[in-house]
Amino acid sequence: MSILVAGTIAIDNIKTPAAEANNLLGGSASYAALSASYFCDDVRLVGIVGKDYPQEHLEMLSTHGIGLDGVEKSDADSFTWTGEYFDNMNDRQTHAVALNVLENWEPKVAEGIADAKVCVLANMSPDNQMTTLDQCWAADFVVADSMDLWIEIARDRLKDVLKRLDLFVINDGEARELTGESNLVIAGEALLAMGPKAVVIKLGEYGAMLFGPDGQFFRAGAYPLREVKDPTGAGDTFLGGLAGALVKAGSVGGDGVAFEDLRQAVVMGTIMASFTCEEFSTRKIQNLSPETIEERFNEFKAMGMF
Amino acid sequence: MSILVAGTIAIDNIKTPAAEANNLLGGSASYAALSASYFCDDVRLVGIVGKDYPQEHLEMLSTHGIGLDGVEKSDADSFTWTGEYFDNMNDRQTHAVALNVLENWEPKVAEGIADAKVCVLANMSPDNQMTTLDQCWAADFVVADSMDLWIEIARDRLKDVLKRLDLFVINDGEARELTGESNLVIAGEALLAMGPKAVVIKLGEYGAMLFGPDGQFFRAGAYPLREVKDPTGAGDTFLGGLAGALVKAGSVGGDGVAFEDLRQAVVMGTIMASFTCEEFSTRKIQNLSPETIEERFNEFKAMGMF
Repeated sequence: MSILVAGTIAIDNIKTPAAEANNLLGGSASYAALSASYFCDDVRLVGIVGKDYPQEHLEMLSTHGIGLDGVEKSDADSFTWTGEYFDNMNDRQTHAVALNVLENWEPKVAEGIADAKVCVLANMSPDNQMTTLDQCWAADFVVADSMDLWIEIARDRLKDVLKRLDLFVINDGEARELTGESNLVIAGEALLAMGPKAVVIKLGEYGAMLFGPDGQFFRAGAYPLREVKDPTGAGDTFLGGLAGALVKAGSVGGDGVAFEDLRQAVVMGTIMASFTCEEFSTRKIQNLSPETIEERFNEFKAMGMF
Repeated sequence: MSILVAGTIAIDNIKTPAAEANNLLGGSASYAALSASYFCDDVRLVGIVGKDYPQEHLEMLSTHGIGLDGVEKSDADSFTWTGEYFDNMNDRQTHAVALNVLENWEPKVAEGIADAKVCVLANMSPDNQMTTLDQCWAADFVVADSMDLWIEIARDRLKDVLKRLDLFVINDGEARELTGESNLVIAGEALLAMGPKAVVIKLGEYGAMLFGPDGQFFRAGAYPLREVKDPTGAGDTFLGGLAGALVKAGSVGGDGVAFEDLRQAVVMGTIMASFTCEEFSTRKIQNLSPETIEERFNEFKAMGMF
């Protein structure tokens, strides 16, 4: 089964209290595609890079079997994010965002990859999410992420996207912002009422909540890390790992995804996200083995048993 | 089996964005004893009240089978806390603390109740925790809570208490303050190194982490509430519920408490704390049925299954 992942492909420059690194692989779609590639051998990346984009990043993605036919190359400069984390790594400040290639970009999904069964709309403008989705004519399962920026400047368009989703994934602050509800249980229900069949509210280091139809609910903790080196992309990694796990479990297609399968997928997203936090950029999640992933999944399961 | 609960018995005056109530039953030992009483029919309260203490509060505790022989009555005024919660109920401001009877109080554990097998040192000064513990000659299991104030003004004495504990329960901010470690996994291990056989770090609305010997670890979420009316006493309720659950499970005595039993007890503490948040003061937890508690425990268990 095939997964199409559309979103941003960025160059990240990141500073933390302990270290600093530049010219890193970043972007919502990069993390999500890489994460999904551990569970699915047909992952198709849709995005745009500039003329200055480091070739080694694309090659690394390619060695993970990720199809790059949907990655446009532009004569402009690449999308670049420069940011810094402070203290306990929860506070983040953006120093610079250079949209460059993203300005006026409209995703084009070539015919050869448009028949993907799972469509992952990683964080990008709701307009671009909608344009992508309109071209994915065969999608049986559509999942999207978003961010505070789009809630602020493109709320109505984001709500249009929500109506077409099987699963919407968002963090706690954004859930509150989009719904106006401070209580997360009520916010989750309010998001469901906006259209998606299921909703995940991510709680950062505290895990995630999953809301399904008919009041179904699941609460996962997060994997406890002794050190967070760089949380950039953790949410995107969560998204891709979740979609990949659904495909691997054979959940997509037929009568729709069972809530039990969504639970497992949320946990797998959680596990994949924990790896991302352990190194800068994708340095950890580009070097995982299936055994390492399975081991942490089982360890995590044991931690929550009572 | 018997549980002795020592700590404060207060009059609380509480304001929230939605409501305000005065002359409420409060105090760390009141909540903890009431919570424990659902699991153990021999709960012994140790504390002090003033001449103005509302008789109905003591009567309510008595109807739950809680022994009041250890409650001193003083000619001074009662210990009173006046505080306000804001916004999402996580921000709290203390408007007034009147120590009154607590000034110069030294807990006296009468001979008739000093043979308790479980000793719960609810939040009070480390000096008073130590004095209580010194009198509980038969205790097989000792658990204590604390607060930021004691970390700031009585850190060394608190560390003396820690050395004598089977279980130390503290919240995330206090764990960071006491250990100087911002990462909670490392903070938990640092607390273990201070002496207690096990440590719980409470995460408020995000649940709790349990650290045991030999790297044993358990992570519980919190029960998702649609509305938090008054979180006062939630941590104390957690403490009492946890101790009660250990007694009910027959875990105390013999070769020491098994980590599996501690896991269950942490979950029961979590469940009991969730009830406390649903009404002002002890109004909810003074009117529970065993069936209501069991139902929520089972519901919570199902929520975390994957």
